Amino acid sequence: MQKIIDLNCDMGEGFGHWVLGEAPDEDLMALISSANIAAGFHAGDPNSMDRVIKLAQVYGVGLGAHPGYRDLQGFGRRFIQTTHEELVNDIIYQVGAVREFGRRHGIRLQHVKPHGALYMEAARNEELSRHMIESLGAISGDLLIYCMGVSKTYEVAKRLGHPVVREFYADRDYGTDGAIVFTRRVGRPDPEAIAQKCLRACLEGKVTTVEGKDIDIAFESICFHSDTPGALDIGRAIRATLTENGIHIAPASAVLETA
Amino acid sequence: MQKIIDLNCDMGEGFGHWVLGEAPDEDLMALISSANIAAGFHAGDPNSMDRVIKLAQVYGVGLGAHPGYRDLQGFGRRFIQTTHEELVNDIIYQVGAVREFGRRHGIRLQHVKPHGALYMEAARNEELSRHMIESLGAISGDLLIYCMGVSKTYEVAKRLGHPVVREFYADRDYGTDGAIVFTRRVGRPDPEAIAQKCLRACLEGKVTTVEGKDIDIAFESICFHSDTPGALDIGRAIRATLTENGIHIAPASAVLETA
Amino acid sequence: MQKIIDLNCDMGEGFGHWVLGEAPDEDLMALISSANIAAGFHAGDPNSMDRVIKLAQVYGVGLGAHPGYRDLQGFGRRFIQTTHEELVNDIIYQVGAVREFGRRHGIRLQHVKPHGALYMEAARNEELSRHMIESLGAISGDLLIYCMGVSKTYEVAKRLGHPVVREFYADRDYGTDGAIVFTRRVGRPDPEAIAQKCLRACLEGKVTTVEGKDIDIAFESICFHSDTPGALDIGRAIRATLTENGIHIAPASAVLETA
Amino acid sequence: MQKIIDLNCDMGEGFGHWVLGEAPDEDLMALISSANIAAGFHAGDPNSMDRVIKLAQVYGVGLGAHPGYRDLQGFGRRFIQTTHEELVNDIIYQVGAVREFGRRHGIRLQHVKPHGALYMEAARNEELSRHMIESLGAISGDLLIYCMGVSKTYEVAKRLGHPVVREFYADRDYGTDGAIVFTRRVGRPDPEAIAQKCLRACLEGKVTTVEGKDIDIAFESICFHSDTPGALDIGRAIRATLTENGIHIAPASAVLETA
Repeated sequence: MQKIIDLNCDMGEGFGHWVLGEAPDEDLMALISSANIAAGFHAGDPNSMDRVIKLAQVYGVGLGAHPGYRDLQGFGRRFIQTTHEELVNDIIYQVGAVREFGRRHGIRLQHVKPHGALYMEAARNEELSRHMIESLGAISGDLLIYCMGVSKTYEVAKRLGHPVVREFYADRDYGTDGAIVFTRRVGRPDPEAIAQKCLRACLEGKVTTVEGKDIDIAFESICFHSDTPGALDIGRAIRATLTENGIHIAPASAVLETA
Repeated sequence: MQKIIDLNCDMGEGFGHWVLGEAPDEDLMALISSANIAAGFHAGDPNSMDRVIKLAQVYGVGLGAHPGYRDLQGFGRRFIQTTHEELVNDIIYQVGAVREFGRRHGIRLQHVKPHGALYMEAARNEELSRHMIESLGAISGDLLIYCMGVSKTYEVAKRLGHPVVREFYADRDYGTDGAIVFTRRVGRPDPEAIAQKCLRACLEGKVTTVEGKDIDIAFESICFHSDTPGALDIGRAIRATLTENGIHIAPASAVLETA
Repeated sequence: MQKIIDLNCDMGEGFGHWVLGEAPDEDLMALISSANIAAGFHAGDPNSMDRVIKLAQVYGVGLGAHPGYRDLQGFGRRFIQTTHEELVNDIIYQVGAVREFGRRHGIRLQHVKPHGALYMEAARNEELSRHMIESLGAISGDLLIYCMGVSKTYEVAKRLGHPVVREFYADRDYGTDGAIVFTRRVGRPDPEAIAQKCLRACLEGKVTTVEGKDIDIAFESICFHSDTPGALDIGRAIRATLTENGIHIAPASAVLETA
Repeated sequence: MQKIIDLNCDMGEGFGHWVLGEAPDEDLMALISSANIAAGFHAGDPNSMDRVIKLAQVYGVGLGAHPGYRDLQGFGRRFIQTTHEELVNDIIYQVGAVREFGRRHGIRLQHVKPHGALYMEAARNEELSRHMIESLGAISGDLLIYCMGVSKTYEVAKRLGHPVVREFYADRDYGTDGAIVFTRRVGRPDPEAIAQKCLRACLEGKVTTVEGKDIDIAFESICFHSDTPGALDIGRAIRATLTENGIHIAPASAVLETA
């Protein structure tokens, strides 16, 4: 049973004039314990980063960089075929930008979570995961890497002894292989159902797949998305349900310390 | 008389497939003592930054961020009307990216030199200079700011007690007001003439203007441009001439310490 | 008295994953008679252009290109200092892209309306207006130019004999000089009040300024913005009120023919 | 035997301040019969397009659009995984921009040649080729498509009855399967050897592969690259050698008419 868990959300995923999701950043930030900050390649700009990272400091939220492929039009959801060296340079660039705004607002960088297609590519590509983790590890040995439990990223981090955080996706469905299933949902998901799914995953380490089977799931952080319709209600329901059931929500760095 | 001087050059100002200037980065890096690294907004990308910052470490060159307006097409040479807050966020973003690659290659960030139209706008805009210097100063009190001696940037930095480096432009002409005159040159400038101009500026603190008058000039760093035709010969001539005349070339941080 | 008037709206001003405004494109398109299509520089991408231009064809809406400064982050609202030649090239590029999607969907290009800071710069800059109108005129002599009645753009177009459409801004306030006043509004504007303002402008050629004075206003098109809160209700109110009062809404090309 | 052949070259592949290749555009334009104009996504900007398309008109060169993936940093050489609809929209957008500058300078659009990774992806992806050719065909039935002889693009165009131009790559090596082999060359290729290779391909329809075997090759156009070192000498050698041997160089539209 999981007595302390991280609750993370992607933040600052607008660009310039455009915003993403209906929930005000500040309301979301008050609910979560770690934030993944869009760093300009798939979304986010220096202004959104400054604003959202300042909020992370105010609310005591763990600061994370959320680097993506350089693809604003595709929102970082399109795979781009390139070298691992190039992708690692893209990641370091974005990590540095987030870290600097953290420096400005007096909050240190806790973690890195690749975004979208880059996250999924790293999950299946051992060499990319190795390059990324070794490179980031050489810069900051204590920089947490977020990933799925069923992923090359997790395997490589464990093998290299680099601190790693597995995520449970509150607003995504699971397949029997333990991987996320991308289903196009109709309408708004039910916050209470999501909260119960999270609670069960914490208490029993189980989740029901789209095929209707129960599988084991292990994780240190729960992720929900700020652009899922009703994100704010989802976040509130998760926080309330977990807290009422004696599960403490805290940044991933604190979760790992108690492990 | 100036016995120790910094020699700086903009580096990494290609983008992706495109390169700028004819001189190999490594040959230039071997000549200079401080490098201003293009950080992605007017030029430069994560790959060029990684490559060039690694070279800076190898050659013991002072590392500088060279942030510009977000304008790849205009190479940061077009003024963009916006708020100072927005520009400072742009600068912090780019500074962070450069600093992170420095961290990767074991070299600390020495300075910030705004690029092109941003440099010129800061030079004439006291409020922008103040915002920039206060914001950077709050992040790193020892981060040197490069500017022209005749500029609001210099005045504000002095007033705020922030460390500042004045530049002498080897390959640009001066007007009687001490400001740089943008003249379109025909052909390649003569490296020897440039070197003699630098030597005299160091020894006598004088430069001859386009109007033919001698004016006083004070500076801690000499700048030449990697895309001036014959940049490598210019750099070599400056270095040889200064060194032969007993003037030591060292990063700006060392120059300031001896001041 | 104006018996036939154009009703125009900026359309397709999202980018990639991001949308702008709350109103569905199709609902807006059903209300208006001319659409200004964002063409990729300040907003819009090939997918949004394809989608929205197809809708324009379906609803018999006049097709317009809405070129802006190359500035996605600033949404084309930041002035960029550059040559007129460069700006005209930017405009031609964007016009061509819009025209090609029009060709695809069987709808010819009716007009060009510069966006944001480019519209305002052209309004006050006679040389830019002249360059733009002469260049577009040489390509298509019948391409309508949208502008404010009080603007250099209007003056130049009239002098050059190029067809021009003056706009009345339904959801903006006017100053005594006849220029738009940029005021930050709180809350949603009242659709009925806007519709009455439009009706009076059509019937009497008068608008009340922010200073409370009545001024004359002449125009061939009414503009409202798709990102004004309640845009759909505003569009509906304008259309209903004008129609009920015997004013016919039709594309600007039809309005000019009846003039 | 081929008595009339097209000679094409990619043109305008700089961006903003950056240029590509050492040869002046005008000198190259004087040698070729068709130009593929970079249209802003992988390279090229409205200014380069205006300038180069004007040159194409002056030299009577066939005008082509050279659309690429939206990837300036990768120069369109990186595959991006996305839908065919999205890619076709990208192509139409770029085609329209080129066509509009052609309109400005009084030269009609002759052809489309996808660039880099998009060209190669279309070559192997039948569905993408079909989408592209059907969509472009619906807009302009006479718009020539450039491709490799061994490609899905060629097969689909033939099947659909859409006019198509096969290319022979002067400065690339061939494999036994008739596909181009990407080899990193050291130094400058020999213009005379390239010219002889082209002559033999025209006269005998044969080329020697990297494995040393002769294969058949059929084509209507010869392509060489403006950024191959010595491009100007290569172009001159090809033109001189072919002309001296009675082979006429003319735009692809003229070549197809004589076929």
